[in-house]
Amino acid sequence: MRALAAHPAARNLDDDTAVLEVGGEALVLTHDMMIEGTHFLPGQDPADVAWKLVATNISDLAAKGAEPVGVLLGYQLNGGEDRFLAGLGQALEHYGAALLGGDTVGGTGPQALGLTAIGRATHRPVPSRGGARAGDRLWVTGALGGAMIGCEALRAGSGDSSAYRRPQARLAEGIALAPQVTAMMDISDGLLLDASRMARASGVCLTIDSAAVPLACPESRRAEALRWGDDYELLFTLPPGVTPAAAATCIGAATSGPAGGLLVDGKAPDSSENLGFVHR
Amino acid sequence: MRALAAHPAARNLDDDTAVLEVGGEALVLTHDMMIEGTHFLPGQDPADVAWKLVATNISDLAAKGAEPVGVLLGYQLNGGEDRFLAGLGQALEHYGAALLGGDTVGGTGPQALGLTAIGRATHRPVPSRGGARAGDRLWVTGALGGAMIGCEALRAGSGDSSAYRRPQARLAEGIALAPQVTAMMDISDGLLLDASRMARASGVCLTIDSAAVPLACPESRRAEALRWGDDYELLFTLPPGVTPAAAATCIGAATSGPAGGLLVDGKAPDSSENLGFVHR
Repeated sequence: MRALAAHPAARNLDDDTAVLEVGGEALVLTHDMMIEGTHFLPGQDPADVAWKLVATNISDLAAKGAEPVGVLLGYQLNGGEDRFLAGLGQALEHYGAALLGGDTVGGTGPQALGLTAIGRATHRPVPSRGGARAGDRLWVTGALGGAMIGCEALRAGSGDSSAYRRPQARLAEGIALAPQVTAMMDISDGLLLDASRMARASGVCLTIDSAAVPLACPESRRAEALRWGDDYELLFTLPPGVTPAAAATCIGAATSGPAGGLLVDGKAPDSSENLGFVHR
Repeated sequence: MRALAAHPAARNLDDDTAVLEVGGEALVLTHDMMIEGTHFLPGQDPADVAWKLVATNISDLAAKGAEPVGVLLGYQLNGGEDRFLAGLGQALEHYGAALLGGDTVGGTGPQALGLTAIGRATHRPVPSRGGARAGDRLWVTGALGGAMIGCEALRAGSGDSSAYRRPQARLAEGIALAPQVTAMMDISDGLLLDASRMARASGVCLTIDSAAVPLACPESRRAEALRWGDDYELLFTLPPGVTPAAAATCIGAATSGPAGGLLVDGKAPDSSENLGFVHR
């Protein structure tokens, strides 16, 4: 939402996710859009597209330690409704979210899909990407690079593509970690790009030891895996000495400067242009 | 959402709008999608497109007697961001809604836009389209046909197109009427089509005296005006003898049968195929 964030009406758009206080509860709201050819492959199984649409939004809730309540769907009809609904039903059941409503539209051109997910925060204050403090340790759940390998398998028509087609949102982990973390976000656009966003939002410098990052791909692909998106792991910071309540790996730390900076193995990454997947 | 409503996961999709009970409050949630070439004209001023996107969603809140809280935007970048944001800001200020968050995406083809609006119900139970009872009178706010004339003016490049470009959601009217009505909905797809939906949801027959419907277009266009959408007036039922708390016109009544039926001047309309604007 950075293109819109410059406008006064768009002041809350630095983050993917909004927190709304209602009747003593904190609702977490997130909206993601997917366009055929940009966010999913033309001809891809609509059931997998539906799963991914749900999982990416649920991942945003996970990063807030929120439990899903329901979703609103924006769906451009294209004839793939039966398979889409099969995948949608699977994903909603998997994550315990109800389909609350939405809109179907006609239209020509690449299919456009939107999903709004609503969750209830399980811990207050709700974690944000802006709370990392100098001295914190930087952690990541799971391993990176699986979606990259899965996407290649899907394009090639052979090999295991499930990590790309059916990403798993770290919902239980997010809820377990929410009371502990100083900052948390999901890695949707690549570790380096998302870490740089956390650094900026927190006003700290984040340092990453690239060799410490767990991989779900061959070691030879390590540098790419750090810049590839779609893995939907959680990136978070903890005060030093705190052991995370969910399985995770320490991959770096927050330091006092330069504010908003990112250092990988002690150096600034090659270019800010390709730290990860930029959605525009 | 009728194509999706057959699926078990989609059981709440008969209505455009969801009601969510949170911490003793009732939140009203609605999502509308607009595709270039289907819901707005290619080349149309993005400020007007933004206004309409907001107004259509706020109109759904109005039909529930809800006051706006905020919106989440799904925006496919196309270079018209400055004008879009200008119109978005105007509409959000006009309706008292905050931009809470959202997503911007790239992509080729016709621009796709989505908006999720969140409101707080001002009256419980929240009005639905399913509450009309035999004997109730049928009412409509404002006048119909203005958007039709406005759309023609916009296509022709002359005349007043504001009713089509800048529709007004009946927010104050919806809040005033909510405690009185037995059923309420907005007319987004045309009076006859939306009235038939209310009849089905309520299990009553609705009768309309077509000559009683106030027009915002020449008398010669009356039949078309009853089937044209985009006017965003409120259609509602009241028990006999109740005077509406907002300016409105009585245009018919609810009777006991046939359930789900619609009679215009005593006869079933020509065809169920063209009662109004079907979004697919």
